[in-house]
Amino acid sequence: LCPDAQARPPAQYAAGPAAGGLFDPMLTSDALALCTSDASWLQAMLDVEAALALAGSDCGLVPDGAAEAIGRCCAAERFDPSDLGRQGRLGANPVIPLVAQLRNAAEAEMPGAGDFVHLGATSQDILDTAGMLVVRAASAVTLAELGRLAAGAAKLAAAHRATVMSGRTLLQQAVPTTFGLKAAGWLVAVLDASEILDHVVSERLAVQLAGAAGTLASLGDAGPAVVTALGSRLRLATPTIGWHSDRTRLAEVANAFAIAAATSGKIALDVSLLMQTEVGEAFEPAAPGRGSSSAMPQKRNPALSAAALACARLAAASAGLFLGSMIQEHERGVGWLQAEWPALTDLMRRAGTAVGLMADVLSGLEVDTAAMAANLAASGGLAMAENVVAQLSKRLPPGQAKRVVEEACLAVRAAGAGSRLDSEVLARLPDGHGVAAGELAAWVDPATYTGSAEWLVDKALERLTLQRARARHPGGSS
Amino acid sequence: LCPDAQARPPAQYAAGPAAGGLFDPMLTSDALALCTSDASWLQAMLDVEAALALAGSDCGLVPDGAAEAIGRCCAAERFDPSDLGRQGRLGANPVIPLVAQLRNAAEAEMPGAGDFVHLGATSQDILDTAGMLVVRAASAVTLAELGRLAAGAAKLAAAHRATVMSGRTLLQQAVPTTFGLKAAGWLVAVLDASEILDHVVSERLAVQLAGAAGTLASLGDAGPAVVTALGSRLRLATPTIGWHSDRTRLAEVANAFAIAAATSGKIALDVSLLMQTEVGEAFEPAAPGRGSSSAMPQKRNPALSAAALACARLAAASAGLFLGSMIQEHERGVGWLQAEWPALTDLMRRAGTAVGLMADVLSGLEVDTAAMAANLAASGGLAMAENVVAQLSKRLPPGQAKRVVEEACLAVRAAGAGSRLDSEVLARLPDGHGVAAGELAAWVDPATYTGSAEWLVDKALERLTLQRARARHPGGSS
Amino acid sequence: LCPDAQARPPAQYAAGPAAGGLFDPMLTSDALALCTSDASWLQAMLDVEAALALAGSDCGLVPDGAAEAIGRCCAAERFDPSDLGRQGRLGANPVIPLVAQLRNAAEAEMPGAGDFVHLGATSQDILDTAGMLVVRAASAVTLAELGRLAAGAAKLAAAHRATVMSGRTLLQQAVPTTFGLKAAGWLVAVLDASEILDHVVSERLAVQLAGAAGTLASLGDAGPAVVTALGSRLRLATPTIGWHSDRTRLAEVANAFAIAAATSGKIALDVSLLMQTEVGEAFEPAAPGRGSSSAMPQKRNPALSAAALACARLAAASAGLFLGSMIQEHERGVGWLQAEWPALTDLMRRAGTAVGLMADVLSGLEVDTAAMAANLAASGGLAMAENVVAQLSKRLPPGQAKRVVEEACLAVRAAGAGSRLDSEVLARLPDGHGVAAGELAAWVDPATYTGSAEWLVDKALERLTLQRARARHPGGSS
Amino acid sequence: LCPDAQARPPAQYAAGPAAGGLFDPMLTSDALALCTSDASWLQAMLDVEAALALAGSDCGLVPDGAAEAIGRCCAAERFDPSDLGRQGRLGANPVIPLVAQLRNAAEAEMPGAGDFVHLGATSQDILDTAGMLVVRAASAVTLAELGRLAAGAAKLAAAHRATVMSGRTLLQQAVPTTFGLKAAGWLVAVLDASEILDHVVSERLAVQLAGAAGTLASLGDAGPAVVTALGSRLRLATPTIGWHSDRTRLAEVANAFAIAAATSGKIALDVSLLMQTEVGEAFEPAAPGRGSSSAMPQKRNPALSAAALACARLAAASAGLFLGSMIQEHERGVGWLQAEWPALTDLMRRAGTAVGLMADVLSGLEVDTAAMAANLAASGGLAMAENVVAQLSKRLPPGQAKRVVEEACLAVRAAGAGSRLDSEVLARLPDGHGVAAGELAAWVDPATYTGSAEWLVDKALERLTLQRARARHPGGSS
Repeated sequence: LCPDAQARPPAQYAAGPAAGGLFDPMLTSDALALCTSDASWLQAMLDVEAALALAGSDCGLVPDGAAEAIGRCCAAERFDPSDLGRQGRLGANPVIPLVAQLRNAAEAEMPGAGDFVHLGATSQDILDTAGMLVVRAASAVTLAELGRLAAGAAKLAAAHRATVMSGRTLLQQAVPTTFGLKAAGWLVAVLDASEILDHVVSERLAVQLAGAAGTLASLGDAGPAVVTALGSRLRLATPTIGWHSDRTRLAEVANAFAIAAATSGKIALDVSLLMQTEVGEAFEPAAPGRGSSSAMPQKRNPALSAAALACARLAAASAGLFLGSMIQEHERGVGWLQAEWPALTDLMRRAGTAVGLMADVLSGLEVDTAAMAANLAASGGLAMAENVVAQLSKRLPPGQAKRVVEEACLAVRAAGAGSRLDSEVLARLPDGHGVAAGELAAWVDPATYTGSAEWLVDKALERLTLQRARARHPGGSS
Repeated sequence: LCPDAQARPPAQYAAGPAAGGLFDPMLTSDALALCTSDASWLQAMLDVEAALALAGSDCGLVPDGAAEAIGRCCAAERFDPSDLGRQGRLGANPVIPLVAQLRNAAEAEMPGAGDFVHLGATSQDILDTAGMLVVRAASAVTLAELGRLAAGAAKLAAAHRATVMSGRTLLQQAVPTTFGLKAAGWLVAVLDASEILDHVVSERLAVQLAGAAGTLASLGDAGPAVVTALGSRLRLATPTIGWHSDRTRLAEVANAFAIAAATSGKIALDVSLLMQTEVGEAFEPAAPGRGSSSAMPQKRNPALSAAALACARLAAASAGLFLGSMIQEHERGVGWLQAEWPALTDLMRRAGTAVGLMADVLSGLEVDTAAMAANLAASGGLAMAENVVAQLSKRLPPGQAKRVVEEACLAVRAAGAGSRLDSEVLARLPDGHGVAAGELAAWVDPATYTGSAEWLVDKALERLTLQRARARHPGGSS
Repeated sequence: LCPDAQARPPAQYAAGPAAGGLFDPMLTSDALALCTSDASWLQAMLDVEAALALAGSDCGLVPDGAAEAIGRCCAAERFDPSDLGRQGRLGANPVIPLVAQLRNAAEAEMPGAGDFVHLGATSQDILDTAGMLVVRAASAVTLAELGRLAAGAAKLAAAHRATVMSGRTLLQQAVPTTFGLKAAGWLVAVLDASEILDHVVSERLAVQLAGAAGTLASLGDAGPAVVTALGSRLRLATPTIGWHSDRTRLAEVANAFAIAAATSGKIALDVSLLMQTEVGEAFEPAAPGRGSSSAMPQKRNPALSAAALACARLAAASAGLFLGSMIQEHERGVGWLQAEWPALTDLMRRAGTAVGLMADVLSGLEVDTAAMAANLAASGGLAMAENVVAQLSKRLPPGQAKRVVEEACLAVRAAGAGSRLDSEVLARLPDGHGVAAGELAAWVDPATYTGSAEWLVDKALERLTLQRARARHPGGSS
Repeated sequence: LCPDAQARPPAQYAAGPAAGGLFDPMLTSDALALCTSDASWLQAMLDVEAALALAGSDCGLVPDGAAEAIGRCCAAERFDPSDLGRQGRLGANPVIPLVAQLRNAAEAEMPGAGDFVHLGATSQDILDTAGMLVVRAASAVTLAELGRLAAGAAKLAAAHRATVMSGRTLLQQAVPTTFGLKAAGWLVAVLDASEILDHVVSERLAVQLAGAAGTLASLGDAGPAVVTALGSRLRLATPTIGWHSDRTRLAEVANAFAIAAATSGKIALDVSLLMQTEVGEAFEPAAPGRGSSSAMPQKRNPALSAAALACARLAAASAGLFLGSMIQEHERGVGWLQAEWPALTDLMRRAGTAVGLMADVLSGLEVDTAAMAANLAASGGLAMAENVVAQLSKRLPPGQAKRVVEEACLAVRAAGAGSRLDSEVLARLPDGHGVAAGELAAWVDPATYTGSAEWLVDKALERLTLQRARARHPGGSS
């Protein structure tokens, strides 16, 4: 039976091996390795050639049986990627030797069928369309990982909706927040990243069939019909016109994946900072050997977060290529195509892997709520200074409240551990201030000063619910 | 009357001077200079402070008259940007001194009003929200320029729908195309860039009001209501939660502008290549002194395209910052905010300017259709080799057609000017081929081999019509 | 007297104003603003034109008196940068209108002199050579700032040679180090950055005079002599051949400045981390208002470090342009020149400013040695686990030492504050281990385990001494 | 016998396979694939471990025979890179499992030897030092390719010292130059790139041995001695102090390779432009199948240049990582190490490959001197306008010469093919101008107007001679 590209589930370019090599496994999850492997790429190219023959047949350009014969040859295992890659050096392009071999195979399968291989296409048509199939597969995996990451963040947001901890700005303790709100912040960023990637994948993946210079001339009048048939068979949109040298959609795809990676990087950085020895508020899930050091037995390194950060930074560096590649010459430029697809493949590997790593982290994150409380308490109430000023301003003349609190803050800092903001403020209040010590003690209680944190957590969780509902019923009105 | 931010038309942060300085005018159009100037930024910050006071009043947090008093002080001309900038060094942030001065002014305007300045906000709230207003203004200008650029491309596409010229891939003549299709390619890219920018501006510009660490604590229970009121007054969306350290939307904005710039850069490169002395198929519109050289009187340099390319490359380099800045610490990171807004301001200047420059170019492009025909003819029919193979394949055994044409191509190349592909093919045909010389001459006529070029031009023009209609009736079903 | 470019001290393109505007002062020190201002650029261009006339005179191409007349006109204050900038739009280049105005001025000064303005030069010759003069000025300032930064680091390294603190890897406490070694690490990086910048400035700044397309044809046979004379008058090296489209040296200059910026960024990040509320081991020097928050009176933000980090990141983003601009067309490319010099000017501003900011920070850094000791002690000796394993390995069978210590580490972590590694180890030692409790207590004393830290501090300080000596006697053998 | 790292020639980390895979061979030459393969990396790590044991032995820390036993185990073929890579996920680092396996192997080889594996080192020490060995190997290959590229450029420069062609600026014909000077420009850029890479490799490759946090504490007092011994055995410099989080040298290495890549990219772009159908002045060497199209038999694509450009752009994008990675936390940052070495490996592959590709191109470049002459002649002398103005200025009043020539240029452009500048000028000269038609014809002869082109070619060739001499006698005075 002919391998019908339509029958292949979108995320299953999975003929290749899992991640291998000395460094790659650290930066490539098995899921991403599978769907972006050389074998997957090769199968994607062959799926395009098979679908193209069928599209030609749909339009009456290919005789009965030939498309099926070609399709029977379009199995990745019949070709050797490295052989194609090495032959591809001659034309800076592995499609040329692939087409030659496929033509021979089809001819052997059914005499005359070889002439109908690669109908009306140029190499870049095959590469670009196959690339879109690989992007779709990698997106599906990455969106699933983003879903897992969102679930992890949401679970933490819900569980720690009211767990008071210190908010930190410019790496300084600022005012209290809740760990739930922090996790809700991660969640919203992940939902955004999902929607951005989903939008690009839904709207911007398109078939490429434009022929030698964009006119589809070798298909005579049938060009547009073949393009539509090809798109339909591969479930890819038909673009207004070919995009050989309009690389906008690649820049969008690259940016969407890089945003997913950077979102994971943000979470990874936060987890690393929470794991700091002096902070110790949350930890990557423990596993035998994970995060250990070759020299220091006490160490518990943020190993998954480190890998995720590395992925995010590599993805960001790669993304820079695609704005450059938008500026290329005439109907097809020189030397961009050869850079684009390898770079995008790597970028997608890094992005999906970063997301997956942080999904692992959040789903098992160990939270130390006692440490959160202790760190907040350790400052002697300094983190509540904003509130004390606000409360005091109701009792004292304008300006005076702030001045008193500032002086008290300096005193607490100078005195160090054990000193408290409320006592120092009390000691500085003018006569007849009418503020009870108990009142002051309440004003420096962080639990009273988390503002709308819980309300915001709920909003973020509602948005997850909404996104999930929409994902289940994509046809519904929005 | 209080300056109501709502009353300010979106693209009119235009109090500043036109582009000045030694290099800036080359890289900044006056339109972009106006809406992104220091004066515009300052007014945007003041509009946020004014709207915040009104929002506080809406929610019952600000006494009667105070918001109006604050609003009366929120006029850029009352403040000195350089003074604020220099004072801003202390806190790495010009908002701190601005708030102090505004507080004093409001207090002078109405005693007690100073206490209601900057209600519940942190400096970054003002900077981020003001930034969104500046982005909106710069987007409006840039979208208008994109509209002008689309119009220029569309005019060329329609006028030259059937003007035959050489398609060029890897800088080689490939097969014929029409200049209309080339211009339609530009048009589609510009429409895409418009839609991308419009999507980001419509969907992702949001108010920022989150307070010291994201909880809105200093507003008590009123936080969410004030956020909504502020967003409503400034016509900015209310985000799920604050985005102090979730910089996704900045990365999206930066990428959308950089895509607009790169799209202009693509067109600029094509125009530069068409203007090549040896090609000479199209020229930037002439103007006294434009494109002249300080040394060579015969030169007609692609001066506007050069400036547009410079802008596009600068924009691309800047865009790299924003994926990095997504990875920042906790509730607000260290040293990203200070980089983001200046970088984005420059990026928007470059992008809008690049688009405007190329709109000027396309609207007056001088097209030399005779040169197009001559360049295509000069190759002696080589550009028609694909077609000759296709036609001949119907008459000769498989493989033989391609071999004959390849040999003929080599012969034409070797013989040089005056030699023709049809004659060389004819000389190589096997006995009894049954191909008439007239047939062959027709096969090498480029006008017969533009495939679906005209059909594709029409599709592109229809899309422009659609986009314009949608812009006029944004509320209509899509 | 004619303004002799040679007489101008290298770092004194200082006619311009100090940093102004709303955001610029935060990212541009006054020193850098002065030497890279529009006025400085303009004067540099005029210095090149003046020196070119003199060089022409040296070679007998310019009649007596004409070079002097031209020189008298070469004063920046006689020209309006914004007027030139706006006129420069026509040719994407402000030199064309400058030359026209200068020619008129020279002609008015001495009839006939106008013909000898811009002798044999093309606009890019003036721009590139002037750029090199501006680079030299900015380098001199930046090298001085690097010297100041090195001095600050050295002072800390010497003072805290033996101040024990926790070394931190992957943000975890690792093993002890000394603050002196940390500062010595900064010092070595700064010395490297200095040497890299000094190397580029010494070896790679070169005059540009190549004429319309690199042949110097309009100077007849005198071309090379004029180039040499011009280089000599401006104290710039004579390149092997012109570098209109060989932009290697710009990439080197950009990278050298970006490295200086990143080095400052590294120190800024470390200072920010040391200032963390939970760490509190070192602080930016206090100044009224510095690092304060608009909302939180207790805050002491790393404001200078934040600005330095912003500068470093902006510099890194800009640096990306210059590898791209190396790949340009033929004798001069399209649209790179217009991007290069503005981008490099900004990059140099950011780099020099970042260095200067961190020099300010280190020269007044407040170090809390008690906090360093306390943070190290707080882990109950965990940071000494490596040492305990090493010591114990001498007494126990291989493998057993590590296992015992690992279990003890887990116990300390589990028990939390108050628990100590030595007790936990002792409790787990096998019978007859022969380890005295006092021995164990000594093994967990961080002061005994700083290895070669002090020796390494001395090496770093020696290198500073050596670099300073070399700077004083640059002619000496190395 | 123990594998002595010193005995391994610097460029021979060549145990791995040649380039394989679908895309890699296009972007990776076999030479670069060999010296940067996983097998090479693994052997480099093992060489470091072997040398470390010997260095420990040199310093009396390792008992007799143990270092040799360890060394016998340090053969890449005894380990499985993918197994290490997958185990390395736990610690974000393949060195941890490698050390564990090596320890077991050494213990099996000689009981007790296992304890002396990885003496005083942390994983990053091994990775960084091994990385330096791989850099050295890749540099040696790349420098050899640069030598080959220089030789190709030099041959062209010498052969075409006086071959007149059009100089082109902003893609316009400017004034004449010689192809020799163009090639000399390539040569000088290649010599610069060589010197930059050679400088970095000679001066900045350094051993890394700093221990857990930079103090070498686990080596007691012997730390510095072991570092020196290790450096000596591996022929790597001893750094002032460790560089775990001072990544300046990586940024320098990355930039040096990226500059080599960009230099190749510049040449590749020029070759692509010279190969343009309408220009046709030079061509990549022909080879069966090279540069052919899958659709168009007449095509001769710049396939090698396209691959080189792709490599150069990928290298430039990667280089951006390294300025970011300089800004990392404390004694070792989070998630940079994991990105750096994979990125640098790819960058080196791309750079060396780009250089090698262009060496292939230049060594066989087909030059069409007739086309060069014809293209220059085709403009009817416009390219000589600068000269005509200069000559005429000696006869006419100032200003008039330029005006006459400008009008004549416009007339030539308007009239098109066949029209000539000299006739048009003659027709416009005022009465009694005294200019003979023959004089004018001479003024528009490009061969008379190549200025110092040949002299500059000689200078460039002399520099190559000098560089080669220096390479042969590196110890000589310079």
